[in-house]
Order: sequence, then C-alpha cells, then structure tokens
Amino acid sequence: MRPQSSARTNPRGSGDRGIPDATIARLPIYLRALTGLAERGMPTASSEQLATAAGVNSAKLRKDLSYLGSYGTRGVGYDVEDLRYQIAREVGSNQDWPVVIVGIGNLGQALSNYGGFSSRGFRIVALLDGDDARVGEKHGDLLIHGMDDLDNLVTEHRISIGVIATPGAAAQQVADRLVASGITSILNFAPSVLTVPAGVDVRKVDLSIELQILAYHEQRKAGGADGRVVAGL
Amino acid sequence: MRPQSSARTNPRGSGDRGIPDATIARLPIYLRALTGLAERGMPTASSEQLATAAGVNSAKLRKDLSYLGSYGTRGVGYDVEDLRYQIAREVGSNQDWPVVIVGIGNLGQALSNYGGFSSRGFRIVALLDGDDARVGEKHGDLLIHGMDDLDNLVTEHRISIGVIATPGAAAQQVADRLVASGITSILNFAPSVLTVPAGVDVRKVDLSIELQILAYHEQRKAGGADGRVVAGL
Repeated sequence: MRPQSSARTNPRGSGDRGIPDATIARLPIYLRALTGLAERGMPTASSEQLATAAGVNSAKLRKDLSYLGSYGTRGVGYDVEDLRYQIAREVGSNQDWPVVIVGIGNLGQALSNYGGFSSRGFRIVALLDGDDARVGEKHGDLLIHGMDDLDNLVTEHRISIGVIATPGAAAQQVADRLVASGITSILNFAPSVLTVPAGVDVRKVDLSIELQILAYHEQRKAGGADGRVVAGL
Repeated sequence: MRPQSSARTNPRGSGDRGIPDATIARLPIYLRALTGLAERGMPTASSEQLATAAGVNSAKLRKDLSYLGSYGTRGVGYDVEDLRYQIAREVGSNQDWPVVIVGIGNLGQALSNYGGFSSRGFRIVALLDGDDARVGEKHGDLLIHGMDDLDNLVTEHRISIGVIATPGAAAQQVADRLVASGITSILNFAPSVLTVPAGVDVRKVDLSIELQILAYHEQRKAGGADGRVVAGL
C-alpha cells in the first residue's frame, strides 16, 4: 500500500476516487513537464519552474501535487525524478496498456503512428476497420483486421482501451461492440456522444473544440460579437 | 451591441473577458449538442436534456448559459435554434476562419481532411511543410507550400489561426514564424510547450493526455497502484 494514501482521502470531483477529476486531467501535463526538465538534466525544480513548464499557475500545481502527498522541500523544491516516478505510477504510464484502434482512415493512421503513445505506455496492438476492402492492409507492423476479429484480439492481447476513429454515424455501434468484447475504456474521436454502461469510461476528443476556443478569443481580439476589444491572454 | 451584455460582467476565469475560461471551453460542446437536438427535430430542450446531450450536469449547464444571458423558459426549457444561434455567434462559428496547417505528415493530412472543421467555420486554406521534398505535393484541393510562402499566404487569405502538426523539435521555430507573419492564434499538436508574445493565444492538443486519463481510471478499476477497487463513473 502507498504511504501517501492518507493524502487521497479528500474527495471533490469524482466521488470516492479521492483526487479531483480536474487534478487527474492535469497529472499527464505535469508528467510531460517533468520529463522535459529531466531531459535538461535538472535534479530539482521549484513549484514555479514546474508550473511554468506545465503552463499552469504554481498555487494550482502545489494544490494538485498535495493530493499525491507531494509537498516538495522548502528552499529546494521537488525532486524531479522522484515526482516523475510518482505521477507515472499514479496515471499508470509505467505500465503496459495494449490499445486497439477502430477506423483506419487518415486519423486512425495518424494515431497508429503517433509517437506520443508508446512513450507513455500505450502500445497499439490491433487495427480494425469496418470496410472489408481494407482488411489485410498493412500499416507499420500491423495488419488491418475486420470487426469479427475484435473479441479474439481483445482476449489475446488483454486489451482494455479502445480508440474510435470512425465517422460519427458508426461510432455508437463500434462502442457497443467494444464494450461487448470486454473493453472498459474508450477514447472517442468520432463526432458523436456515446452511450455506454456504468463501469465503462469514455473520453471524447473533438479536434475542432480547441479551434472554437481560439476563435472565441480571436473574435474578441478583432472586436467581434459584442463590439469590445479585449487584450490577449 | 448585445442586449445580454450585462450578463457578461461577471469575470471569473479570465480577467475582463466576462465569461470564465472553463465556460468558454464548454460552449463548443453545447453547440454540438444543440446541433444534434436540432437535427432530431426538437424545437425546445430542457436543461436536463441539453445537459445529457452535452455530457455535463444540468446545474453547470444552467450556470454556463446564464453567462450568455440565456435562462430558458420555465416549463418549456431552451429554444434550440435560438440558443444554437446565440452560442455560434459567441464562439464565432458562424464566421469564416481561414486556417493554415504547418507540418503535413500523417497528422497534418488527417487534420486537413477532418470534416469537423469546415462545419464549424474553419476552412483549411493553406498547407505548409518544412521539407522541400514535400513542396508541390497535392492534398485534396491544396498544394503543399514551403515555409517561405507563409507571409504571402497569411496576407492573401487573411489567416489568423495556425495549426502546428510538426515534430516537437520544430514547433517553437514554426510558432515564431507564424507569429512573425501576423497569426494571433495557434493550435499546437506538437509535443512541446510554446513561448509566444502577449496577444497570441496558444491551445495545446496532446493526443495522449486523454488516454492517460483513461489509464488512470482503468488502473483503479483493476485495483491498481493503491490496491483499491473503485466503481466506475
């Protein structure tokens, strides 16, 4: 058991998980920042340095890390390798996570080649497509399988995470099949809201959402909808 | 000027912009949910229906919409088309936003074909790549240009938003060139933190972040790091 477990008894965002969801969402960002600092050979980092590298304010960072029982050392800061190990263990990125991608169009292909997955423990082990004409095509080291192979692949590779990169209309049906095969976490790139049973987690990535947030600010810089010009960030 | 402007005088997340950043980040999600409801022919929606479609809780939704001056009608709910128009105007998605993509690897190609952009007013008007061997290749209706064409393309198409889909090592240099060309909003898919001058907005998309959040929960379902088994969502 973990010596810091007492630090995780402060539920806020997500029932009894202990760490607020918003904090969980920032842990991967801290992990990436720590990896950057480690690569530059920094043995320790102040909360300000780490906050700057992660793009958050340092009060929020200190609060977030306190949920892990990490408070740093006064005058020294945080031990970079130590904290990196601790967060990696927390988010599970020092484990091996076999992943299946369904829908091998442009986006599915880009995802299957995305270097940022393997370095965080996510190993793409299977590619599936609903189009029979695509079955048997090779991408990198992997063949494209038909949907009928899903159950066997999930069992064989012990896959718990599925990525949906299909068109929106196919996404719910694919999600149903993923869930039926035993997958309990789904990352959805398709433009549709999925319904899944309790116990299955879905995270949605809409590549246009971030652009819309930029457009909101851009509109205001240009003196848009409400006629006000507002300074940038 | 907007009749609801008094509803926007409640600054919280972002200085004097009026609407909290977290609310702004959810407006595109509400917009997508409203579009879905409109397509199913619903003239009105309760806050619960809209919240379910958007995947948030209804108290948060009502609070968010109150920043736009939208409170719905008791017993009727929100007028779907009305609210959709209002949010679209707020986020600027009924405007035309010309976009340049830099880095036309797998991800850049996927982004250049992504249907979800054009339907929200984002029009990919230029593709650039730092590799001279790629210059002149055609993707869809667009030619790949070299970086030297950037300034002319930005001026010609009045581009204010740039998307970086290069490897991490090239991203800062590309960002510097985008800023020098007059671009004031950057969507960064590269795995690096960018430094930009005040007045330039950067949003970062790390495709592995959402997977790491799933892995965090997956680890707990499996009785992971701290030995506890926690029920799903």
